[in-house]
Amino acid sequence: MLSEFDLIAQYFTRPPRANGQVALGVGDDCALLTPTAGMQLAISSDMLVSGRHFFADVDPYTLGHKSLAVNLSDLAAMGARPLGFTLALALPEARAEWLAPFAKGLLALADLHHCELIGGDTTKGPLNICITIFGETAPGQALRRDAAKIGDDIWVSGTLGDARLALAGYRLNACKNDPDEPLGGQINLDASNHALAAARMHQPTPRVALGLALRGIAHAAIDISDGLIGDLGHILQRSGVGAKLSVDDLPLGAVLAQQPQTIQRHFALAGGDDYELCFTAAAAQREAVLTAAQNASTKVTRIGSIVADPGIAFVAADGTALDLQLSSFDHFRTT
Amino acid sequence: MLSEFDLIAQYFTRPPRANGQVALGVGDDCALLTPTAGMQLAISSDMLVSGRHFFADVDPYTLGHKSLAVNLSDLAAMGARPLGFTLALALPEARAEWLAPFAKGLLALADLHHCELIGGDTTKGPLNICITIFGETAPGQALRRDAAKIGDDIWVSGTLGDARLALAGYRLNACKNDPDEPLGGQINLDASNHALAAARMHQPTPRVALGLALRGIAHAAIDISDGLIGDLGHILQRSGVGAKLSVDDLPLGAVLAQQPQTIQRHFALAGGDDYELCFTAAAAQREAVLTAAQNASTKVTRIGSIVADPGIAFVAADGTALDLQLSSFDHFRTT
Repeated sequence: MLSEFDLIAQYFTRPPRANGQVALGVGDDCALLTPTAGMQLAISSDMLVSGRHFFADVDPYTLGHKSLAVNLSDLAAMGARPLGFTLALALPEARAEWLAPFAKGLLALADLHHCELIGGDTTKGPLNICITIFGETAPGQALRRDAAKIGDDIWVSGTLGDARLALAGYRLNACKNDPDEPLGGQINLDASNHALAAARMHQPTPRVALGLALRGIAHAAIDISDGLIGDLGHILQRSGVGAKLSVDDLPLGAVLAQQPQTIQRHFALAGGDDYELCFTAAAAQREAVLTAAQNASTKVTRIGSIVADPGIAFVAADGTALDLQLSSFDHFRTT
Repeated sequence: MLSEFDLIAQYFTRPPRANGQVALGVGDDCALLTPTAGMQLAISSDMLVSGRHFFADVDPYTLGHKSLAVNLSDLAAMGARPLGFTLALALPEARAEWLAPFAKGLLALADLHHCELIGGDTTKGPLNICITIFGETAPGQALRRDAAKIGDDIWVSGTLGDARLALAGYRLNACKNDPDEPLGGQINLDASNHALAAARMHQPTPRVALGLALRGIAHAAIDISDGLIGDLGHILQRSGVGAKLSVDDLPLGAVLAQQPQTIQRHFALAGGDDYELCFTAAAAQREAVLTAAQNASTKVTRIGSIVADPGIAFVAADGTALDLQLSSFDHFRTT
């Protein structure tokens, strides 16, 4: 006597993959995972709520991708190798037209990272997606937030701000004077550029290969989900240091690069949903960082340095101090 | 710049406990857990939704207890030793009057089982509690659903049906002719008996010690969340066997024992939310089962046997077959 929500599980059930560490998958009281001898487990949970972390009518394929991507991004920020994940899903109704593409987007990204769906739960309720992910890292090798050292370079992967620009586009399409977009009047975004930026918002690329390549090279790392200065701030706070950021060196998203400077700086520094890595490494490791990035086929950019003075000091290309008025939580995903 | 939902985390943050396996707890991209060499990890996720798995106005202390209890019960059903858990929590608003007792109930049970809160997520949204729990078991020792053998005894821990009776009480208090309680007219439940039964519904006891004691003795095990016959059905299906149940041997909850026989049988067999263990063991192991139960200070009752014929056959004390009309998903928590 299967309920419709038991049937949901069938969209996520398939023969075990070949990573060899899942001793027992979906279908018992617990899944069983065999850790590699001597390794530590890295574990992270994220809960995504409809209307808060994503639009209720978002394409379910990209939502499946993004739900796992934000968790893989947490493993990347620790330098951990993905093993598996659980999926707990509350849905207002069980519709195949939604479930099939959601599962497809989720499992495509899972396969790419050899990260197996090992269990979970499905229930009726307001749309809510909770993924808990497991990875492995050798003891002492994890990239922790508290490990930045004075004199370290600060690096960022990929580009920043296009996801935040896409959100602005959605808001301004809905309401020309959205109070959440006080700088909206300066934004100029046609439909094709909005679509380009939106791809960054809906399908972030977790930097798993880069995180792995940086083990033994980087000191501290974090993934940028809440905006660069907010997330870099976590590193600074936990490491008891400050930062000097070279604002003109920030790697801008391709679409953001066409916007006025105020928008560029605001969205690259304080936008959210980028899921790039921000990390620190000793200045003597510059070549090693660039080689690691090349091996991971991921662009990295040096954007500043760790200093003793607390807080973040912003400087322009000519070295002059900038006084920027920024809020680090000014984006879609506040918590 | 902490949001109110960052502040929530403070209710759940405290100095690390002494189990020694949590290398890094709340506050980084991932938690780090050090598994015991050679052990397998048992992992389970449960998502509890307001209005579906619990009443929106339920006492938050007992809700904190129950949220972890249902996950500990999954570890118990595998014979796994609890290590830690993540908590993802969506809340409509951050109210200390709710959060403080919720955290207290949750962490009191966590401490009792040396199971550490290692990370999670908090967000604004319709009330939703998602816990993922981790335990350890030696390879080959886990109590799996697919391990029942023909000739095995079927056992159940504790007592059955009081949780389901409590739910009936709430429903009939709200509506004398609730269509979900077609047998409601036969139920006679005064306020003090309702309160006794409700304690079983709101604060189930996960049978962790019993699950551990049964390793190497029991064959298959499952925890009873959806009702005995539904959950025993999972063992039967996955083991490719059937069962003969001695209905008059079912251990009834103290309050249920005062109800008419129809209600007793219905609620003990097909009620939900008991969180007792149902397990099978060879008939030659009867003494060993009773000793394990005594060591775990947990009552167990032999209620039937595993047979070759598929399905469940019900028999009365005099050996005559019973034709019971039951639905295994007839309770509060359907999925």
